[in-house]
Amino acid sequence: MYTGSKLVSLEEAIRRAGLKDGMTISFHHQLRDGDNVVNTVLETIAGMGFKGLRLAPTALFPAHKPVLDHVKSGVVNRIEGSMNGPIGSYVSYNPDALASPAVLRSHGRRAAALASGELPVDVAFVAASQTDEYGNCNGIWGKSAFGPMAFSYVDSLYARNVIIVSDNICAHPTHKQEVHEDRVDSVVQVDCIGDPDKIVSGTLSITTEPDRLRIAQDVVDLIDALGIIKDGFGFQSGAGGMSLAATKFLGDRIIEKGVVADFCIGGTTKYVFDIYRQGGVKYIYVGQSFDFASVEFCRDNPEGGVWSTLTAAHYASPGGKGRAVDHLDVVFLGGTEVDVNFNVNVNTHSDGQLLHGIGGHQDTAAGAAFTVILTTILRKTNPIRRDRVTTITTPGDVVDAVVTDQGMAINPRRKDLLEKVEGKDLPLATIEELRDRAYESTGTPTPPRVDRSKIVGLIHWLDGTVMDTVFKVEEEK
Amino acid sequence: MYTGSKLVSLEEAIRRAGLKDGMTISFHHQLRDGDNVVNTVLETIAGMGFKGLRLAPTALFPAHKPVLDHVKSGVVNRIEGSMNGPIGSYVSYNPDALASPAVLRSHGRRAAALASGELPVDVAFVAASQTDEYGNCNGIWGKSAFGPMAFSYVDSLYARNVIIVSDNICAHPTHKQEVHEDRVDSVVQVDCIGDPDKIVSGTLSITTEPDRLRIAQDVVDLIDALGIIKDGFGFQSGAGGMSLAATKFLGDRIIEKGVVADFCIGGTTKYVFDIYRQGGVKYIYVGQSFDFASVEFCRDNPEGGVWSTLTAAHYASPGGKGRAVDHLDVVFLGGTEVDVNFNVNVNTHSDGQLLHGIGGHQDTAAGAAFTVILTTILRKTNPIRRDRVTTITTPGDVVDAVVTDQGMAINPRRKDLLEKVEGKDLPLATIEELRDRAYESTGTPTPPRVDRSKIVGLIHWLDGTVMDTVFKVEEEK
Repeated sequence: MYTGSKLVSLEEAIRRAGLKDGMTISFHHQLRDGDNVVNTVLETIAGMGFKGLRLAPTALFPAHKPVLDHVKSGVVNRIEGSMNGPIGSYVSYNPDALASPAVLRSHGRRAAALASGELPVDVAFVAASQTDEYGNCNGIWGKSAFGPMAFSYVDSLYARNVIIVSDNICAHPTHKQEVHEDRVDSVVQVDCIGDPDKIVSGTLSITTEPDRLRIAQDVVDLIDALGIIKDGFGFQSGAGGMSLAATKFLGDRIIEKGVVADFCIGGTTKYVFDIYRQGGVKYIYVGQSFDFASVEFCRDNPEGGVWSTLTAAHYASPGGKGRAVDHLDVVFLGGTEVDVNFNVNVNTHSDGQLLHGIGGHQDTAAGAAFTVILTTILRKTNPIRRDRVTTITTPGDVVDAVVTDQGMAINPRRKDLLEKVEGKDLPLATIEELRDRAYESTGTPTPPRVDRSKIVGLIHWLDGTVMDTVFKVEEEK
Repeated sequence: MYTGSKLVSLEEAIRRAGLKDGMTISFHHQLRDGDNVVNTVLETIAGMGFKGLRLAPTALFPAHKPVLDHVKSGVVNRIEGSMNGPIGSYVSYNPDALASPAVLRSHGRRAAALASGELPVDVAFVAASQTDEYGNCNGIWGKSAFGPMAFSYVDSLYARNVIIVSDNICAHPTHKQEVHEDRVDSVVQVDCIGDPDKIVSGTLSITTEPDRLRIAQDVVDLIDALGIIKDGFGFQSGAGGMSLAATKFLGDRIIEKGVVADFCIGGTTKYVFDIYRQGGVKYIYVGQSFDFASVEFCRDNPEGGVWSTLTAAHYASPGGKGRAVDHLDVVFLGGTEVDVNFNVNVNTHSDGQLLHGIGGHQDTAAGAAFTVILTTILRKTNPIRRDRVTTITTPGDVVDAVVTDQGMAINPRRKDLLEKVEGKDLPLATIEELRDRAYESTGTPTPPRVDRSKIVGLIHWLDGTVMDTVFKVEEEK
């Protein structure tokens, strides 16, 4: 039985999906700040007259500022997903713009919520950099390549209707298939899914700030002192100038010691593959590609030999039967604030604005045997070490240490680690001392001016409970 | 949070799975007649005292004869899956040994039945030739390699509990991962999952019988005359001496004509890869490996470059959103019997015994633009062309032609094809003429001696309806 091409216009794909007012639509964020797909789809949906949709992206970026117009006009009236930048800022001041509070979940928790039906997705719009007309597609080939489609596996599995959106329709069958036609309803061709320069940064570079370089070096000294850097260990690397530096220095230490890690989970960058090329790690789980080098590595090396795509479900879903993050020996993470109970905030700024998503912060912190947070003790006039974080993203009971430019503190809960570092040449301090050093420079922080009667967003924890609440920020008078 | 190894004894894995009397357990058949896993598991289950289980394998082989003991003792009281050989033979004479008729589904239909809950699997026992202690596993590495795990994707997705059974526990993480830990409950180490010599045949060879070679050559002439062998076409190859010959001859014709097929679906053998190596096909979907050469090819070439695993769901599930088989331009298939209405029987022998599974016969016949059946017109004293097949596996309305040693017939329904072959130098005949030629040699076939009050098995069609019924065979008096 010949079944025709699934290639239709975006409008037709949406019609065939049976989209109705009030339904839930999803997107992945792997095109990051270069993404055109969210805006293109929402413009079309708005033009078709739909209202009251729930947006369930893995994350939104500054490029998605036009979402605000659709929130204001009522096309979108709920958001369950990370909001990086202007959208989070807007709802922080205008929570009534949404019919119910935003819900933020970690990558793993989102996968579990889709699987369990807690967050049922009606239509998933899946950006692909290469697809055939039946929807066999990938993210590593084509002008808009963004890396392995690690997030869309879950959406393609659980969304009622799946629409592939691509600027690169290839001959059938696509040779590299990450989402397969048996999960795809329609295929839509657009001019351009995104701006390659912003999709993956070609210029990710290590921090040059001495304070941050010291933190990156100190964290490697710490994990070395703890005996973690040994044959067979597993680590997660991240992006951001300080994480890149830490990855680089960790690689140097691995090579210097002549050990080989069994695996690394990324957030992959050239620095990870450099470690691989030098023989310092055997296998790379790719959850996201953060630079071109990472996309190229995935093209040039066979999946299953050196690397494999790590779906959000395998990465970290608490609803699954095993999570890759639970095998991590160490993860180093950032934070906008850390308090004396080792609670970490990555979502809000100290003025209360919701400006960042959770990403894999909770997932890896809960999973890794050793979780260390890297931050300076202050940012501008804001103490990052403090009595209480503005918002708890990741609770202190899964955070083992913090490393700052003014010393490092180990969570007293981890007596085993405290014993191991005793007498080592490390700039150890208590978490209270770090807070005091921050306060000495900045003074006691001013609490955010919030209206606790108006809820902006809910920060979910891995089990689906609410970890913390984000409240309306009062306008400056 | 450290989560321990999933490595436990088979008994413990079964206990943890919460297996209870009456539940359904599944297996894949990719170890074929070399499989040890079905017998090992059933022996253990019997020893633990379970009764009344439903067996839902993708297929059973002669090696699984011990299943009969478990049927007789009541450990297994229902079978939904293909039964090749002794088990089918036994239930053909003893339908009362099972509490309800056996149900046979095609590969695609089985995938749909698992997905829809029509065939809910409680515990899937998944043989893997390499796994880590968390269940990330594959079928292409290790001493018992059997090829990509194309069937277990579906079971791992829908079974309530998934147990990986392997004779090769590797360091974590397994580099080639086909089933991932997020779908795996337990991992069991056994001495040997199968006999490598019987898992994939190292000695698959082309038929040497002149009649069969002529059929293989004629079918290639026919599909060439129909204009199918051209740039961009897609074909499915099979195993068996005559199919291998047809694949070989098709490859020769492809090269001779200088065309390149876009893809091939296998049942892969060295003959398929020979076509690839000569530049005759761009891409190979591997649904099963039929020989060592195929396993080696999958090891040596990157998945996603030249080949990819074709899950049973993507291959042919009528419950999915797209099937690879629907893109086939041509498939050549076998048959135990073909009748004047082009109905094909692959399940029963002419004496009524249920001796074979459906495999992908219905799936590909329904999917391919041109479906051709290859058979001799008789086997021993049995006419293969006949008035009515003993059992309808695949109905004549999805069969387009039959090619025999005594001529070829095109289904009159396909007037377009009849026009195309008019005047071509092909040994054309009507289907009735082919039947007559068979009957001339053998006489009119003796109908099987069956008891129509006792149902042995139900042959399901792709939509889940019953295509035909297999009845009890009467013992010879």
